[in-house]
Amino acid sequence: KMLRRVLCTMFFMGALPSPAEMSQGHISVVLLGATGDLAKKYLWQGLFQLYMDQVSSGHSFTFHGAALTALEPGQKLMFDVLKKLACPPDEAPDRCAVLKDQFLKLSQYHQLKTAENYTVLNREIEVLLRQEGLKEAGRIFYFSVPPFAYTEIARHINSSCRPPPGAWLRVVLEKPFGHDLESAQQLAAELTSFFREEEMYRVDHYLGKQAVAHILPFRDQNQEFLDPIWNRHHVERVEIVLKEIVDAKGRTSFYEQYGVIRDVLQNHLTEALMFLTMELPANLSRTEEVLQCKLQALRSLRGLEKHSAVLGQYQAYASHVQEELKKGQDYVSTTPTFAGVLVQSDSLRWEGVPFLLTSGKALDERVGYVRVLFKNRAYCTQSETLRDAGHSQCKAKQIIFYIGHGALNTPAVLVSRNLFRPVMPKSSWREVVGQPELHVFGQPLSDYYVYSPVKERDAYSVLISNIYHGRKDFFITTENLLASWAFWTPLLNSISHQPPRLYPGGVENQNLLDFEMVSGELAFTAAEPVELLHPDRSMPSDFKTIQSKFRQSPLVSMWSEDLISQLASDVEKAANRAVAGSGQFHLALSGGSSPVALFQRLARHHYAFPWRHTHIWLVDERCVPLTDPESNFFSLHSHLLQSIRVPYFNVHPMPVHLNQRLCVEEDGGTELYAKEIAALVANSSFDLVLLGLGTDGHTASLFPDSENGLEGTRAVVLTESPIKPHQRMSFSLSLINRARQVFVLVVGKGKHDVTTQISRVGRQPRKWPISGVSPSSGQLVWYVDYEALLG
Amino acid sequence: KMLRRVLCTMFFMGALPSPAEMSQGHISVVLLGATGDLAKKYLWQGLFQLYMDQVSSGHSFTFHGAALTALEPGQKLMFDVLKKLACPPDEAPDRCAVLKDQFLKLSQYHQLKTAENYTVLNREIEVLLRQEGLKEAGRIFYFSVPPFAYTEIARHINSSCRPPPGAWLRVVLEKPFGHDLESAQQLAAELTSFFREEEMYRVDHYLGKQAVAHILPFRDQNQEFLDPIWNRHHVERVEIVLKEIVDAKGRTSFYEQYGVIRDVLQNHLTEALMFLTMELPANLSRTEEVLQCKLQALRSLRGLEKHSAVLGQYQAYASHVQEELKKGQDYVSTTPTFAGVLVQSDSLRWEGVPFLLTSGKALDERVGYVRVLFKNRAYCTQSETLRDAGHSQCKAKQIIFYIGHGALNTPAVLVSRNLFRPVMPKSSWREVVGQPELHVFGQPLSDYYVYSPVKERDAYSVLISNIYHGRKDFFITTENLLASWAFWTPLLNSISHQPPRLYPGGVENQNLLDFEMVSGELAFTAAEPVELLHPDRSMPSDFKTIQSKFRQSPLVSMWSEDLISQLASDVEKAANRAVAGSGQFHLALSGGSSPVALFQRLARHHYAFPWRHTHIWLVDERCVPLTDPESNFFSLHSHLLQSIRVPYFNVHPMPVHLNQRLCVEEDGGTELYAKEIAALVANSSFDLVLLGLGTDGHTASLFPDSENGLEGTRAVVLTESPIKPHQRMSFSLSLINRARQVFVLVVGKGKHDVTTQISRVGRQPRKWPISGVSPSSGQLVWYVDYEALLG
Repeated sequence: KMLRRVLCTMFFMGALPSPAEMSQGHISVVLLGATGDLAKKYLWQGLFQLYMDQVSSGHSFTFHGAALTALEPGQKLMFDVLKKLACPPDEAPDRCAVLKDQFLKLSQYHQLKTAENYTVLNREIEVLLRQEGLKEAGRIFYFSVPPFAYTEIARHINSSCRPPPGAWLRVVLEKPFGHDLESAQQLAAELTSFFREEEMYRVDHYLGKQAVAHILPFRDQNQEFLDPIWNRHHVERVEIVLKEIVDAKGRTSFYEQYGVIRDVLQNHLTEALMFLTMELPANLSRTEEVLQCKLQALRSLRGLEKHSAVLGQYQAYASHVQEELKKGQDYVSTTPTFAGVLVQSDSLRWEGVPFLLTSGKALDERVGYVRVLFKNRAYCTQSETLRDAGHSQCKAKQIIFYIGHGALNTPAVLVSRNLFRPVMPKSSWREVVGQPELHVFGQPLSDYYVYSPVKERDAYSVLISNIYHGRKDFFITTENLLASWAFWTPLLNSISHQPPRLYPGGVENQNLLDFEMVSGELAFTAAEPVELLHPDRSMPSDFKTIQSKFRQSPLVSMWSEDLISQLASDVEKAANRAVAGSGQFHLALSGGSSPVALFQRLARHHYAFPWRHTHIWLVDERCVPLTDPESNFFSLHSHLLQSIRVPYFNVHPMPVHLNQRLCVEEDGGTELYAKEIAALVANSSFDLVLLGLGTDGHTASLFPDSENGLEGTRAVVLTESPIKPHQRMSFSLSLINRARQVFVLVVGKGKHDVTTQISRVGRQPRKWPISGVSPSSGQLVWYVDYEALLG
Repeated sequence: KMLRRVLCTMFFMGALPSPAEMSQGHISVVLLGATGDLAKKYLWQGLFQLYMDQVSSGHSFTFHGAALTALEPGQKLMFDVLKKLACPPDEAPDRCAVLKDQFLKLSQYHQLKTAENYTVLNREIEVLLRQEGLKEAGRIFYFSVPPFAYTEIARHINSSCRPPPGAWLRVVLEKPFGHDLESAQQLAAELTSFFREEEMYRVDHYLGKQAVAHILPFRDQNQEFLDPIWNRHHVERVEIVLKEIVDAKGRTSFYEQYGVIRDVLQNHLTEALMFLTMELPANLSRTEEVLQCKLQALRSLRGLEKHSAVLGQYQAYASHVQEELKKGQDYVSTTPTFAGVLVQSDSLRWEGVPFLLTSGKALDERVGYVRVLFKNRAYCTQSETLRDAGHSQCKAKQIIFYIGHGALNTPAVLVSRNLFRPVMPKSSWREVVGQPELHVFGQPLSDYYVYSPVKERDAYSVLISNIYHGRKDFFITTENLLASWAFWTPLLNSISHQPPRLYPGGVENQNLLDFEMVSGELAFTAAEPVELLHPDRSMPSDFKTIQSKFRQSPLVSMWSEDLISQLASDVEKAANRAVAGSGQFHLALSGGSSPVALFQRLARHHYAFPWRHTHIWLVDERCVPLTDPESNFFSLHSHLLQSIRVPYFNVHPMPVHLNQRLCVEEDGGTELYAKEIAALVANSSFDLVLLGLGTDGHTASLFPDSENGLEGTRAVVLTESPIKPHQRMSFSLSLINRARQVFVLVVGKGKHDVTTQISRVGRQPRKWPISGVSPSSGQLVWYVDYEALLG
């Protein structure tokens, strides 16, 4: 009945579509959590906007608000919200009033609590449509409910509320989507058991912000100008920033579990980052291509480490948590309310360009922006005072996607006038002038071409419209979500016990939260003032170093990340010493997983390492081609060699692949390698040999009871591993023990047992090959992390 | 007689040294060109300053002005100059008046024209010293004469005016020291036949400018702050600038031969550059160490190419030349009066940092400075308007050695306050404040620590003092001079016919001379306005491209530098096409000297080349170890591989060195390489083979009448070269002709004859191996430069 009335009204209005055009079918929108905050503030308004925009589209609509509340009080609550729906300023008031009236009539409240409730809802929709003789186009279920309720609701929808074949189902999900990779995977797996990927629309409302949503179209429409400069050769840095004035008061029960990185960086800022860094698909309207390019960009990000981030917490946060969560005075929270993170991409386009993602609460202003700063490559011969300011190539060149608030107080796109005049779609963005005295990003506004939206639209209106249009590229796919969590989770884990810097909040913060890049890491620029140092907190002793003896040799022990830094510095010191002495540094490296972190550290943080004078040798190798991902050399190449500049001649892979076959005795690979060593390394005495330790006590590829390598004087030997690939080539103990320095790296809980055992045994190389390592005139140092040492 | 009078006066003055202290001996200073411009303006004043400073040093002095003019008129001219000598403001007027009187008495004029004149001068000095009973300490001969007079004077001094054993000789030379490497070598060789290296003091008066002279001491005294940042990781760019308002009017007879690069960049700006880039010796007072470090820095500079520079000529220059040199209206000068040059160092410290050297006449202001701009690595969380401006890490960080004139109008050292407060020697530099509203280099003066000299000293006074003290590090050694010419000459040659951009002069230049860096080259930022395009000049047709056929295949011909750029672009295109098709690009490169320029071009200008997907093979190789500088692979490595990122696995040197021996048949190197090719290159058909051409018609290492490789189907063969090293390994014609594309590069006059010959012959591979190159289903393209093609 309701629907018929609608149709009549619309015909009556004349301007609206004739019945022939109404053949697109019917859409039922179900808003779960219809009386919650988000629904009140944005979602109903967004649905009303959808109705206004699409009333003549040929689709008919009904809107079903739902909650746990019983029918009558729920109905009342919901209609109180609906009555307050605003008419947008650009809509004719008459038309809007009529449409609002219609919208209310098309809206209904349902209590959705039990399985029965869902069955009833489904039946009502079916009956309505049958009565009106309408084809069903699809159903939208908008989950504006806490995540713990997701599974239950999803099950009910899947079992009772699916539309008939031929009509689509779209379920819209609001974050949080887990709090780390594992929980996100679990949640995704559950949802996947109820919905197909194309049915799920995960909302990140940043994708509905007009300035963010325009990044890709801007890149596409301005390709002519951007193609030559949208890369590491021209971009100096990128800043992606969301600053808030508000603090977490009233939200600490949520915030204390999430913190700023999960709340803002993992989702909103990462999405903006992807729009900037992804390769541009040939056709932006091909959703699948857009999503693939985005996923590719996400997967090209370089892994984060503890020192990729600086963290802060506003001073009053502790008391907010104590009050709201009923914690004692001694409760210490390490939840960051401010974070700056240095993100880097390993893509050819962006390698080396710093992307600074920053967000925080209790800051001096509310503002969001994405700022691309280009390198200054010009020299201006005329003196500053005489230059034509307008287009001088010596002024900063930047492109800014201004998300909102701040000095401009509107979404905007800004392009420096000395860069180019951008192509902007006239229907949605207009050029604005004025406020020439306003300074943004170090320059007067008059230095930019400035565009703002013809019609400012709320992010949820934009997103609801895109749900209606099935534009999945405005939403987060499961793959995208998991790739994002895979990127952020290691950082979240490594900082979970790190005390953030305290800051007073607001303008008082001054330069306390300024940070800078130092060899690929971030650090606050100002030292932490003494009065702010958590006076009565006991600080986690992350940095305590155990320096003592292990098997009569020096032992360095720390948490693994610090251990790797220390080891890398010690390797560099050894290298500089050797190069100063003999002009070259002969370094022999082991395979396996432990050294990978060392390789990465050396590649990324040791720019001054004397690579040109370093010879790199392999301690052991698996008998596979060098290009096989199982090869130790392959791993060394991926994690170290491809990032540094060692002369080709100084790289010495083991000759496991001679005459097109692997480790055949008569090909003489071991003799060949030994000869090469003898020819280049004085006295076959390496400057530094890096070893690992296996859980069975093996080191290099010398396994317990090995026929070769544990005794005798042969330098390089073929051995057998109990684990595949079985065949190996390895330095012998005899060769290892000629070295000037031997470092043994042992990392991880898994090594605790063997570490304990070998700490007690004497020299028994047949049983414990590692116990045979004992340089005859060189030095042995153990690098063992706390987990391996202490369990 | 004269000298005795001096001594009496000095004793009389009381404050002056007692006879016992006078035991350091006597110094005779001979100023050749005593009545010339330089002498009038600076040198006599500098000698008077030396006398004032050193009158109590224990040395006694006589000053001998000399010129070609006869005794009496010369004497008059010279004493007219001497009478006008100024007393410096910091000298007590009484003392100065007495000393000036003394100085005049100690000064004499001599006509030095004939050999006899020199003998007479020498005898006079000897007689004087014998009469006074003084030991001779040394003689200074200051050549303030045109360079054509040097040899004659030097011969006379060497044969007639050398001081007795135990006393030193110092001859002071003024530029120009040649106008290119060859002429400089010639001049140096002549001088070396008369003087020992330690006797020669070549003046570059920039080394006497106080701000320039303080660069090294500043670096030394501020090591603590500078050590971590004085490198490519922290320095964004360096500008070394000398701008002049004056034009070349009245000096065109000199200027037309030299131009701005020889006049300013080759000497003054290069010297300042060296002080910035050289490694700091452990002890600055060890002159020899300083000079060695400087020479090393000069030799680390990357070679310049035509497009390393932008050139300009002020519009009135042509008429100045026409008038002064009596040239007709149709005389065209390509002499630059403005140049901006991008210099790069290949040292580990500076690799990739742009050093912009700029100088010009008829510009908008007179100013000289050396500006080191550091990278901004900070993000400031507080909004701009609320930041404490003083030390914000987000402001520009720079160190400026302000040579003089300009807005500051004094030599100065400026260091951004957010960098560090420098250590400055209090005796010679004082901190200045004031003029806070003055903006320099984009910032108010109050953003810097500013230091100016306690006592401003003219450059010549500084240098004359350093000649006296024997501080050779303030002068240009022969090695230094020749290294500088070796660096600049290739650029000077390559631009000699290039028409510079015309500029109106003064403030009118506006942004016409602004330039920017584009992939390692420089270009003006603004297009040349049409009205300035030399209306009635016929432009040298540098860029004409001949595109036609050679031996029935496409021919690309240009001047060699353009040809290499074109070839490099074509190689990149081929690479992108192959990678797009098969995912990889198999490129086979030849040895020899012609491809070196191509390798460098690819390394420096083709950042987007798909190296990660490129396999690099050798077309031919000499039978020497790969690390031998004669090896083709070694050359390829030096000029290309070490600068790019090709995966290790993708590099395929020829196996000429197996089993510790070179190209032994039974080691099967050729079969091994052929197998490797067969295993990786589909159908053994390379995507691109690059060949050269020898004067005997050889290509690859396939020489006329070679037993192997010219016929038959073997892919890789051993051959014999008529030139050492005789043994070679080479692709066969059969393998080459399987390629999809073959490019043959032929460059230089030396190849003209063979080019002409092979243009006429048919397929005769036994006689002309190159004539056998004829890809069976691929494309052959000839890249032949004008010199090879046209002779």
